[in-house]
Amino acid sequence: MTIYIDAMGGDNAPKAIIEGALMAKSEFNAPIALIGDVETIERCLADRKDTSDIEIIPVTESIGMHEEPVKAVRQKKDSSLVKGALLAKESYENAFISAGSTGALLAAALLYTGRIKGIQRPAICTAVNILKPMAILDNGANADCKPEYFPQFAKLGAAYISALTGEKRPAVALLNIGTEDTKGSELYKAAHELLVSDEAINFIGNVEASGVLTSDADVIVCDGFAGNVFLKATEGSLKFMGDMLKEVFYHNIFTKLSALGVKKAITEKKAKLDPKTYGGSPFLGVNGNVIKAHGNSDALAIKNAVLQAMRMISENVLGKIYKTI
Amino acid sequence: MTIYIDAMGGDNAPKAIIEGALMAKSEFNAPIALIGDVETIERCLADRKDTSDIEIIPVTESIGMHEEPVKAVRQKKDSSLVKGALLAKESYENAFISAGSTGALLAAALLYTGRIKGIQRPAICTAVNILKPMAILDNGANADCKPEYFPQFAKLGAAYISALTGEKRPAVALLNIGTEDTKGSELYKAAHELLVSDEAINFIGNVEASGVLTSDADVIVCDGFAGNVFLKATEGSLKFMGDMLKEVFYHNIFTKLSALGVKKAITEKKAKLDPKTYGGSPFLGVNGNVIKAHGNSDALAIKNAVLQAMRMISENVLGKIYKTI
Repeated sequence: MTIYIDAMGGDNAPKAIIEGALMAKSEFNAPIALIGDVETIERCLADRKDTSDIEIIPVTESIGMHEEPVKAVRQKKDSSLVKGALLAKESYENAFISAGSTGALLAAALLYTGRIKGIQRPAICTAVNILKPMAILDNGANADCKPEYFPQFAKLGAAYISALTGEKRPAVALLNIGTEDTKGSELYKAAHELLVSDEAINFIGNVEASGVLTSDADVIVCDGFAGNVFLKATEGSLKFMGDMLKEVFYHNIFTKLSALGVKKAITEKKAKLDPKTYGGSPFLGVNGNVIKAHGNSDALAIKNAVLQAMRMISENVLGKIYKTI
Repeated sequence: MTIYIDAMGGDNAPKAIIEGALMAKSEFNAPIALIGDVETIERCLADRKDTSDIEIIPVTESIGMHEEPVKAVRQKKDSSLVKGALLAKESYENAFISAGSTGALLAAALLYTGRIKGIQRPAICTAVNILKPMAILDNGANADCKPEYFPQFAKLGAAYISALTGEKRPAVALLNIGTEDTKGSELYKAAHELLVSDEAINFIGNVEASGVLTSDADVIVCDGFAGNVFLKATEGSLKFMGDMLKEVFYHNIFTKLSALGVKKAITEKKAKLDPKTYGGSPFLGVNGNVIKAHGNSDALAIKNAVLQAMRMISENVLGKIYKTI
């Protein structure tokens, strides 16, 4: 097992990325390897007395956040994204994690790791664990979807949750603008029919965005546009309310004392809601373990993404997806 | 000026609806009239010594939440929704408020109140006032949109905000899955181009769902599916975090004491985030003041919806929309 990490991608790269990788290595002996510019990586490792145990995969090119994804990954073959995507393809015992451009990582995964047979379009799957583990997909890989993608997303998400939790027949719900069967856009009405009629899917119906966090579903399927809006709206409002709470608590000496009384409990609850606690979002449907970490990942987020990658490998998520599809 | 209120629609009808209407009447002398079954309304008014000052518009039919909207409003002409839609059409000095089925209210508004010339599809506009007043539309009237609807939504929202705040050139942003100009689905890329090239619109670019609440924009435009997902995701996560806070504060005697210290400040902040504080969502593009109140509206929500309706009339929002379009 090797977890390849893109040292060059993300808002806080390379420092926080490398720090997270090292945390994973020391805390749970993660078999990490760093992909990136050797000099830059070695500079970040300068504090360590012995770096002989850290594998570095050297690359000379890098892909920026604003480059056209497909063009960039076609041209820059000696970039961390292309190297990582190829290494993910080599073996199901490998994983590749990057906090770089989502579009470029997806393009690299499609071009160099390839798709699992039977899957038209891979999806970005975001795992949350608020009341229980839940997979939400697609979260932005496919802004334009066809109805037939939805049952595929459902099966990918179910296989993923199944591998992680042992749940035999994960319940799948369709994100929609009403709970009634007839609700939604033309796309969602057609997707709903396909989900209902596919016996391999344990479809429990529509769920509105206000009900997702407390839903009984294990898997929520949606198009990449709506999924992205849902997840970012949730992230935005939780952050907004968190900031508001801080303001309330830091108001004066009395509120500061009040804050002390509940600080521990709030910190615990907040950790549950923080996407960083659950690492990255795997690209499901890709023929290898490719995981997108949040662009603003800190060391903790990277450490958790490594943990998630190790779990995906040890639980053989890809093998199980292969069997299901 | 008359504010017609559907006494029969909504989860808490008729009691909470009538209570809210009466609150508006006594608190700011709102010129209310109740539409509904006379006997039911009179029973709810039984506590009042003198009911001679309450106008009742009697109807004999009612439209349920699960009826097919267009069919229902075509057949049940003596329902509160049809009556209210017709009264809204009679004069821009009238308004109609309902907490009933969104689909049926929209169908009634389209069929009986009619559209403003030049508007292909009216939109449900949700006004929030978190850091400043902001209009978000469409919120569910049009699950399937064409690119050309977006500039119309932009103009409707801008005229609305302009009338309410006096802002001369409201800034319009497009909800999207990335801030770069080239991001989004085919629909959103086309909508973006139309918004950029329309000089009547002060278009400031894309905004991601995570940035809406803190955005500089006065108006956020999106299709009805994404708008609904955004608003319900926001509602759901705020409620979720609110419930979580309650749990934290009610944990033991120490946390309860802590809660006392910040209760007032949190209640104030929460009121700002509660959609009920800002009444209902007007259907913009309809040729009359038609306002949808939240299905679970309580008396306070109805009172605030009445206040909003009065403001729409006194600020002549419809007249200003007519001029702009």
